[in-house]
Amino acid sequence: MTAYRPLNPPERLLMGPGPSNLHPRVYRALAAPLVGHLDPEFLSIMEDNKALLREVFRTQNRLTIPISGTGSAGMETGLACLVEPGDQVLICINGVFGQRLREVAQRCGARVTSVEAPWGEAIPPEKVEAALEGGRFKLLGIVHAETSTGVLQPVEEIARLARAHGALLLLDAVTSLGGVNLEIDAWGIDLCYSGTQKCLSCPPGLAPLTLDERAVEVIRQRRTKVQSWYLDLSMIEQYWGEERVYHHTAPVSMNYALRESLLLIHEEGLEKRWERHLQNHRALVRGLEAMGLKMVVAPAHRLPSLNTVWIPEGVQDLAARRFLLERFNLEIGGGLGAFKGRVWRVGLMGHTSTLQNVALFLTALEAALAAQGFARSPGAGVRAALGDE
Amino acid sequence: MTAYRPLNPPERLLMGPGPSNLHPRVYRALAAPLVGHLDPEFLSIMEDNKALLREVFRTQNRLTIPISGTGSAGMETGLACLVEPGDQVLICINGVFGQRLREVAQRCGARVTSVEAPWGEAIPPEKVEAALEGGRFKLLGIVHAETSTGVLQPVEEIARLARAHGALLLLDAVTSLGGVNLEIDAWGIDLCYSGTQKCLSCPPGLAPLTLDERAVEVIRQRRTKVQSWYLDLSMIEQYWGEERVYHHTAPVSMNYALRESLLLIHEEGLEKRWERHLQNHRALVRGLEAMGLKMVVAPAHRLPSLNTVWIPEGVQDLAARRFLLERFNLEIGGGLGAFKGRVWRVGLMGHTSTLQNVALFLTALEAALAAQGFARSPGAGVRAALGDE
Repeated sequence: MTAYRPLNPPERLLMGPGPSNLHPRVYRALAAPLVGHLDPEFLSIMEDNKALLREVFRTQNRLTIPISGTGSAGMETGLACLVEPGDQVLICINGVFGQRLREVAQRCGARVTSVEAPWGEAIPPEKVEAALEGGRFKLLGIVHAETSTGVLQPVEEIARLARAHGALLLLDAVTSLGGVNLEIDAWGIDLCYSGTQKCLSCPPGLAPLTLDERAVEVIRQRRTKVQSWYLDLSMIEQYWGEERVYHHTAPVSMNYALRESLLLIHEEGLEKRWERHLQNHRALVRGLEAMGLKMVVAPAHRLPSLNTVWIPEGVQDLAARRFLLERFNLEIGGGLGAFKGRVWRVGLMGHTSTLQNVALFLTALEAALAAQGFARSPGAGVRAALGDE
Repeated sequence: MTAYRPLNPPERLLMGPGPSNLHPRVYRALAAPLVGHLDPEFLSIMEDNKALLREVFRTQNRLTIPISGTGSAGMETGLACLVEPGDQVLICINGVFGQRLREVAQRCGARVTSVEAPWGEAIPPEKVEAALEGGRFKLLGIVHAETSTGVLQPVEEIARLARAHGALLLLDAVTSLGGVNLEIDAWGIDLCYSGTQKCLSCPPGLAPLTLDERAVEVIRQRRTKVQSWYLDLSMIEQYWGEERVYHHTAPVSMNYALRESLLLIHEEGLEKRWERHLQNHRALVRGLEAMGLKMVVAPAHRLPSLNTVWIPEGVQDLAARRFLLERFNLEIGGGLGAFKGRVWRVGLMGHTSTLQNVALFLTALEAALAAQGFARSPGAGVRAALGDE
C-alpha cells in the first residue's frame, strides 16, 4: 500500500503569470460549508457574483457569469457560441493567446484571417483596419493582455473599427480584468472573458464572461447548434437566469471564493485597484532597470499585471528560477513559445501587487543573479523601486 | 453602493443528487496554500491524483486524470475525443443522462441510434445486442448510475457485447464512482468519467476520467481535430504526462480537495466503502417501506448512492422539501424531466452515507409528512432502518 504524505503545500509568493496569491478571506470562503447548487442560499450567491462581475467588467450586460472552467474554457465558450462553420473571423496575433484564439476559432469551423505583430509589440489599429476592409468578418478576436509577452493592447479604437465594419468584438481579458483599466460598455466590447486566478486573486477554475445583447442575438439567430454542449450559453443562460433550468452543477466552493475575491475589489474600489497595479508595476520597472535589466515591451504598451524582462546574457534561466523558488519560496514565470529561455515573466496581480512584494522580489533576484556571478551595485534595485534615488 | 452580507452559507445535510457533504479534511485541503500549477509540489499532487484515481476506477490505465470541469465536461470530453463527424454511435437511454449522452454525441457529429428502456428500469442486454447487430457502431454509450431515476445499470455483459461487436464502451459513472462496485479493467470499459461531488464527496468542479489504450489509439488515429480545444485529450495528456506541456491552468485548490477526498477512500478501503453505501441504502429502503412509501426501482437495479421514492398521493412535493430544508437544514432532490413532482431523490453518497443520516432523514421525513396531515405509526421508519423490528 502506497504511503501518501499529508497535504502540505508550501507558502509561495506567486509572482508568475498566475495564479496569484489569495487574500486570507478567499481561503476562508473556499472552506465555507458546501450547499447544493440549487439551494436558495447558493442562488443568492450566484446573483451576487453576476452583480459583482458587472462592476469589475464595467458593464450593464445581463448575461455576465462565471463559466465553469478555466480561462481557456471562457475563450472556447465565446468562439463556439458566436462562430458557426464557414464564418469569416479575423484574429489578431502577437503571442501565445492570440495563436490560441486562432486555433480555437478554426476548431469551431471558422475561416480565419489573421493580423500579426511581432511578439512584445501591440497590434497597430491601421493593420486591423486594412484587414477589416479586405473581407466581411463576423467577428474580430483580440487579446487585451497578452500573458506570453506582457503587452497591454489598446482596444478602444480597434473596437470602434470592428463596430464600423459590422464585426463583433471578442476580447481576451484573462490577465487584465480587475487589475488594468477595462471598460466593456464604454469601449463597445461584445464579448469578453477572463480567468479567476490572475488579477482577481481567486484560485483557477472559473472563467468570468460577459456578452452584450448584440452577441446574445447572434447566438439566438444561429442556424446550427453550438458544437459544445457544456459551453452552450443558450443553456447556461437559463441556468444562471430566472428559470434556473438545470444544466450542469456549478462549482459551488469556487463560486464562494469568486464572490469573496470580487467583494474585496468592491471594497477597495476598482479604480484604486487599477492605480495600485500601475504604481507597483512602475516601482518594479524602476528597480529592474536600476539593476541593469531591460524590459521586453516599450513603455506605452507595458502590462502592469505581467512584466516581461529579458534574461541577461549568460544567466541561466532555470537555475535562477529554481534559486528564487527554493531560497525565497518565490515563483516567477519563464518564457513561452518564442520567448522560452529568453524572458522572465513577473506577475504583480491582485493581492500579490504590493510594494512589499516588489521589494522582496528585487532583493531575491539580486541574490539569484549574484549566485551566478552577476553582482551589481548592491540594493540599487530596491532603492530605485522605493524612489530613494 | 450595494451592501453585501458576509459569506455565511448554512450547514446543510446534503441528501440530494449531489453535491454530498464534505469531510472536514476536504474543507481544510481547499484552504491549503495555493501554489502555481507548474510548481514541483503541485506536479507531485497531480501524480498522486492520477494514482489515487486509478485505485478508485480499478484500472491500470495510464491516462487517468481529472478534467477541469464538472461531470458533464467529462461526458463531452469522452464523446468529443472518440467521435468524429459521421461516426455511428449507439446510446442507451433510460433517463436524463442517457438523453444528454445522445445530445452531446449529436453535437459531436455522430449519427446516433438509441436503445431505450422506461424510466426507472435498466437497459436489457438483449436489446443492446439486437441493436449492435443492426449496425456498425464505433461507440456504445451507457449510464452506470442514472441520477435522474436511481437505476444502477449492470454493464459487465453489455461491455462484453460491445467488445464483441467492435464498439468502444463509454460509461457514465458520475453517481457511482467511489460508492458502488465499478471495475474499469475487469469489465473492459474503454472510457469512463465521473464527477467529484457525488460519492467522492469533494466539491463540484472536476470530472475524473480514465481511458484505455484502445481508446487512446482511436484518438491518435483521428482524421479530424477534436472540435473542443479545451477538452482535447491529446493535449491534456501532455499536460498531465511527463512532458508537462502547458495547456490550461489546472484548478489547483480543487485538485487539493480531490486528493484529500481520494485519500479518505484509500484509507477507508474501496470495497468497505461500497459495502457501507449498500448497508445504509438498505437501511433507508427498510425505513421508507416501513413508512408506507414505495421505491421507484425494482430491488435488483437500485442504486445505493441515489434512492428514488414515489411521492405519496396527495403530498405536496415542494412544501415537503421546503419543510426538510427549513426545519432540518436537510436537502433532498426533486424529480427531473418525466419524474418532476412525482419522485424524491435521496442521496446517500460518500461522507453523507451514514446510518445516523438515514435515521435523521427518516425522522425528518416523518415530520414533513405529518405536517401535511399524513401521520403514520410514529417512529416505524427509524425502527425498521435500525433493524429493530
